[in-house]
Amino acid sequence: MNLWMSNVRKVTPYVAGEQPQNKNVVKLNTNENPYPPAPEVQELMDNYDADIMRKYPDPDVTKLVNALADYHGVGHDQVFVGVGSDDVISVAFLTFFASDKPILFPDITYAFYPVWADLYRIPYRTPAVDADFRIVASDYEQENGGIVIPNPNAPTSIYEGLDFIEGILKKNPSSMVIIDEAYVDFAGESALKLLECYDNLLIVRTFSKSRSMAGMRIGYAIGRPEAIAAMNSIKASINSYTMSHIAIDTGVASVNDDAYFKKTVAKIVETRENAKKRLKEIGFSGPDSQSNFLFVKHESIPGGEIFKKLREKNIFVRYFSKPRIDDYLRITIGTPEEMEKLYTALQEIISER
Amino acid sequence: MNLWMSNVRKVTPYVAGEQPQNKNVVKLNTNENPYPPAPEVQELMDNYDADIMRKYPDPDVTKLVNALADYHGVGHDQVFVGVGSDDVISVAFLTFFASDKPILFPDITYAFYPVWADLYRIPYRTPAVDADFRIVASDYEQENGGIVIPNPNAPTSIYEGLDFIEGILKKNPSSMVIIDEAYVDFAGESALKLLECYDNLLIVRTFSKSRSMAGMRIGYAIGRPEAIAAMNSIKASINSYTMSHIAIDTGVASVNDDAYFKKTVAKIVETRENAKKRLKEIGFSGPDSQSNFLFVKHESIPGGEIFKKLREKNIFVRYFSKPRIDDYLRITIGTPEEMEKLYTALQEIISER
Repeated sequence: MNLWMSNVRKVTPYVAGEQPQNKNVVKLNTNENPYPPAPEVQELMDNYDADIMRKYPDPDVTKLVNALADYHGVGHDQVFVGVGSDDVISVAFLTFFASDKPILFPDITYAFYPVWADLYRIPYRTPAVDADFRIVASDYEQENGGIVIPNPNAPTSIYEGLDFIEGILKKNPSSMVIIDEAYVDFAGESALKLLECYDNLLIVRTFSKSRSMAGMRIGYAIGRPEAIAAMNSIKASINSYTMSHIAIDTGVASVNDDAYFKKTVAKIVETRENAKKRLKEIGFSGPDSQSNFLFVKHESIPGGEIFKKLREKNIFVRYFSKPRIDDYLRITIGTPEEMEKLYTALQEIISER
Repeated sequence: MNLWMSNVRKVTPYVAGEQPQNKNVVKLNTNENPYPPAPEVQELMDNYDADIMRKYPDPDVTKLVNALADYHGVGHDQVFVGVGSDDVISVAFLTFFASDKPILFPDITYAFYPVWADLYRIPYRTPAVDADFRIVASDYEQENGGIVIPNPNAPTSIYEGLDFIEGILKKNPSSMVIIDEAYVDFAGESALKLLECYDNLLIVRTFSKSRSMAGMRIGYAIGRPEAIAAMNSIKASINSYTMSHIAIDTGVASVNDDAYFKKTVAKIVETRENAKKRLKEIGFSGPDSQSNFLFVKHESIPGGEIFKKLREKNIFVRYFSKPRIDDYLRITIGTPEEMEKLYTALQEIISER
């Protein structure tokens, strides 16, 4: 062994969904958007002067911060932008969870939360969701150093109403409560309006799902000015310049075209509602998804088996070999054409058995 | 005060050089390159299909990792890529400096090192450089949990030969030694060839200086496969996807055009050598720079005064109000035309006094 190895930090990294390079794959495994980014994004790329690259970008990401603040109707000092929502949540963990008290998040949720907690040596507890995969509000009344709730939750796809979120904020005035709204554009109301009454709320969003820009790496947080200032101090202690010129500019272009955004989100929601019916007809069940994916199990075929057989047919979905959910598949909503391929493949798998 | 503030991590962030948005500024303050990126980078932007953005990028950054490995003649498992060298060094600190022993770096050096150490709660000591700003090799023979040496050092601009680096590697087999080579393309030989004999060496490079791509945010590390694997585990515990599609592709385009790269680096070195003479003629002195900036003081006018007066003339240089170096200016090498404007402005400041 190398002698310096004894100084190395031990971690168990997060394992992201596969990114197959094969173009023939029907890729329904990482909750990407099946439609391209707003047309203005393409225009911007077509007219880009590479000479601008030789200079550092604006470390304050002013243009994109202001565009997002105006879009959401909050102050220009209330938005933090990072390299995807993973970067934003990572900075939020480092910023707000520096006490010795355990933070709380559900046992079935985004598998990255415990990874960040371990990395930054933040103690944590994971209250179990109930038999229907619902988060139990009373579990979040114990002493804690912070709370993370994704709404809608992933991979369960369940959205909880604002009363539920407000209850948690009210019971925890001394804890920062992060509401991870990666999928909220496909669901109900954002917790944004609770910011007026609760200073302990931080909302996290991403351009990777509803804005079709997973490949550009843009995420953001909305909070009280004091919370955003605290995150900016931590960010400026890690990397002065995280957002490239082009990420800033294409991000602004996306925010500017709200009509396109709403149209593509509506198409995905329509496809999702149809998918619920189609999958039920062939023996699948699961929570009533309010996101851009379904979380379903089949009445007779194990999830792991369907996952493998779909993969052989070049259809990628996500499977988690974990207690309580190892019979479920997480299936991203694609175009109607991609979904038809999925239904056909599933029917073949069912009838071959 | 907000109640959750007691859980917030306290830091003193790094303060980066100003990024004025005014186009008329002669910007010699953040060591950017005065020449545009390789022509192939522009071509790539001109032909970019924005549809690719809707998918996540390759989390392993394979294309760029392989291009860099081939360029440097190392294995494909010996390169780590991040969002600028700040991101790379931040990950390296988290990865390799997890012991309770203090890490070591010079007292006059890149001001971000103590910020990362504080953030990640890594103890550190800063041996003083000597009266000529040279790093003293024997200071790096005390017990330590890791070492960071920039070569050339910044803001001093001094390059130390490979014997010096090898001496430090030899004395510290149990410590990871990070050689920050942000400016090495303007200097002498890289420590790269020492990797064969020393498993405790990590070399860090950036696209921000010699490759004219500060605005795209690309940095990388070269090390032994075990070291790179350890960094990748930490990276995958922070953010699955740090490099956008376009950063990966434009990075590869830059590496591919070695003739352009060598030509622009040679132009900057030529301008630098001329600048040394011109500044000496008007009363400036400083170390013999082997980087893309000069570190100089004037024989009679305080550094802070020159800094302010240049700024009034829309010429930005970098000034550090710190003990031992508060009479010095760090001046980036611009185009010959920009440098002429600098010389004229300096002569005016001197004659006005």
